[in-house]
Amino acid sequence: MVNINENFLKLENSYLFSNIAKKVAEFQKSNPDKKIIKLGIGDVTRPIVPKVIEEMHKAVEEMGTKEGFKGYGPEQGYEFLRNAIIENEYKNLGIESDEIFVSDGAKCDCGNIVDIFGTDNKIAITDPVYPVYIDTNVMAGRKENIILLPVLEEKNFVPELPNEKVDIIYLCYPNNPTGTVLKKDELKKFVDYAKENKAIILFDAAYEAFITESDIPHSIYEIEGAKDVAIEFKSYSKTAGFTGLRCAYVVIPKSVKGYSKKGEEIELNKLWNRRTTTKFNGVSYIIQRAAEATYTEEGKRQIRENINYYLENAKIIKSGLQKEGFTVYGGVNSPYIWLKVPKGMTSWEFFDKLLKEANVVGTPGSGFGTCGEGFFRLTAFGTKENSIEAIKRIKKEIF
Amino acid sequence: MVNINENFLKLENSYLFSNIAKKVAEFQKSNPDKKIIKLGIGDVTRPIVPKVIEEMHKAVEEMGTKEGFKGYGPEQGYEFLRNAIIENEYKNLGIESDEIFVSDGAKCDCGNIVDIFGTDNKIAITDPVYPVYIDTNVMAGRKENIILLPVLEEKNFVPELPNEKVDIIYLCYPNNPTGTVLKKDELKKFVDYAKENKAIILFDAAYEAFITESDIPHSIYEIEGAKDVAIEFKSYSKTAGFTGLRCAYVVIPKSVKGYSKKGEEIELNKLWNRRTTTKFNGVSYIIQRAAEATYTEEGKRQIRENINYYLENAKIIKSGLQKEGFTVYGGVNSPYIWLKVPKGMTSWEFFDKLLKEANVVGTPGSGFGTCGEGFFRLTAFGTKENSIEAIKRIKKEIF
Repeated sequence: MVNINENFLKLENSYLFSNIAKKVAEFQKSNPDKKIIKLGIGDVTRPIVPKVIEEMHKAVEEMGTKEGFKGYGPEQGYEFLRNAIIENEYKNLGIESDEIFVSDGAKCDCGNIVDIFGTDNKIAITDPVYPVYIDTNVMAGRKENIILLPVLEEKNFVPELPNEKVDIIYLCYPNNPTGTVLKKDELKKFVDYAKENKAIILFDAAYEAFITESDIPHSIYEIEGAKDVAIEFKSYSKTAGFTGLRCAYVVIPKSVKGYSKKGEEIELNKLWNRRTTTKFNGVSYIIQRAAEATYTEEGKRQIRENINYYLENAKIIKSGLQKEGFTVYGGVNSPYIWLKVPKGMTSWEFFDKLLKEANVVGTPGSGFGTCGEGFFRLTAFGTKENSIEAIKRIKKEIF
Repeated sequence: MVNINENFLKLENSYLFSNIAKKVAEFQKSNPDKKIIKLGIGDVTRPIVPKVIEEMHKAVEEMGTKEGFKGYGPEQGYEFLRNAIIENEYKNLGIESDEIFVSDGAKCDCGNIVDIFGTDNKIAITDPVYPVYIDTNVMAGRKENIILLPVLEEKNFVPELPNEKVDIIYLCYPNNPTGTVLKKDELKKFVDYAKENKAIILFDAAYEAFITESDIPHSIYEIEGAKDVAIEFKSYSKTAGFTGLRCAYVVIPKSVKGYSKKGEEIELNKLWNRRTTTKFNGVSYIIQRAAEATYTEEGKRQIRENINYYLENAKIIKSGLQKEGFTVYGGVNSPYIWLKVPKGMTSWEFFDKLLKEANVVGTPGSGFGTCGEGFFRLTAFGTKENSIEAIKRIKKEIF
């Protein structure tokens, strides 16, 4: 009799985005004339930039010729891309190309990384949080081993070090959903903790390209000692609008070690390499050429324009809400605006009011965890026109 | 202290293809003038067909426009592709589009599927075999639960039902590496076994497009009862030369059930859907359009030409070797030729002799498992010229 993985039964059903979709659909049905503005889901809307399109056409063309055709590529990614990543993202940080693993998405990487760790590890995860970190650990049998680190307004959204000893710490900065960042000295505390406790930091830097202020690390490897304790996740999804193209990468320095029960030190790079070669067959050649194109001069410039466009939206939304007296976080080094809902309201009550009265859709903070209650996430990934219009409506209709 | 997944330490190092590469490199170094023909690795060589190239260009173009741009797609695959799969592959087999999960490769699917099963299941795997089935189960803590089903020449390469009770059975037909097939009645025995024992069959049909004879099932769902017990893996890699593009899919009928410890029946489709939405973000839009194009009239015709080209190579290799007195299997419904090495030689001895004297590279059967000893795999994925030349050399130089 085939047994299922019982841990799947311990997963909480995630109704966040389906509940939102249902409420929006119902509202639209009863109000067919209303034009709803969606600033809920964190998906980009700007088209892929011309330089990337150009290089993809070339790669498509190659695949149709006898000379240019590529079959299986290296599971870890083509050298041309791994070298471009080193050159452009890690030049002075001492990372080598065989410490880079190209993948089809940071969600896959964040999810699959749990494979290489033992079940017994204690896991610290911030609250509110991107639900994938929690769910993938629950699936792997670690539901009872998860410790939540509250991310609170009164602490400037800086998580405190865990009270009890943990082995793996997830950090996402610039943060989803709060849009806040950690300064170098704040991140350093976590690196030091990890070094002292032989723990590992899983650092999700998917929103790194949105950093505008100095003293905010773009990579955890800017922090002294991080190369011994941190795995970094990066993605082209938000940086270059690749959510529909699918390309990302993980960085695992060879100096990052895990431990066997006997106490042997084992390179996590080797374990991940083994997982990668056994369960993955590399990213599409065309998509790897697309990612490479983001590092050309033209590509960089064009991508920067898109990021600036989204950052301008963030500014419009943030300052507009502030003028109306809202308390608003994020939106400076991030495409996410984290707004405090009016006193006495829950996140979901605010959602309903905003939908009904301003016809604007966002994401209730409580959907990201208990500590997200009382907050609300808006994204800057819409159009400028919609960002302006959304703020206008919030002013006019509600307050 | 962060603990590793100890099961990784139980993996056997797989040196098969790296050993081959090393031997070939050494030989080439000492014999720089020899032109080596590689018929070892199972990778295609024909370029992507024009219709698929055309549709990819269109999809690339769309991604560069405001109207055509696609962000996150459904994790399970776009409806246009899932519907095309139903229409073209499962029309009369009663499979629905929400039973299809599009992915970036059958290797990933075969590897990741282990996530939804409990650790205690007994697993039956044929020997010789594609090593991924074994390694991914070892990683998941099932090393001690693997039972090998010998695939023997004297039994016509038809595996027998397991002697002890098993819960999961891996079958790959047309088979890699032997190139042999199961007839409907032979496969039916496994389906009946699974039904009787509440077991599951994981059916890898990656080479289905190479079937030329009748009475060989193209899908396990052609077998009565299979919809209750079988998960099927299919891929565009060998069918349409997508090894460098990356697209595949899994079929999980809702009628396939697993069991919780309490004995509840649970749809595996639901569990896989949960895994997919949590750990995966869909296949690149461009690649899904490429896969869709393989189902157009033009696409089908062009792809069939390539498959026929490879099948012609298989015929050349097989009949050539037979004329020389070799005993040869496969190559009729498969791109793989499984040849019996001359009496008294091991697979690796034959490899060395073939490399040295004919400058032809193949894969020693023993690399696929104990029961592969005494056999040797050649692939039909090279060029026609090289297939002819390889046989000529084997004649002239060795025998």
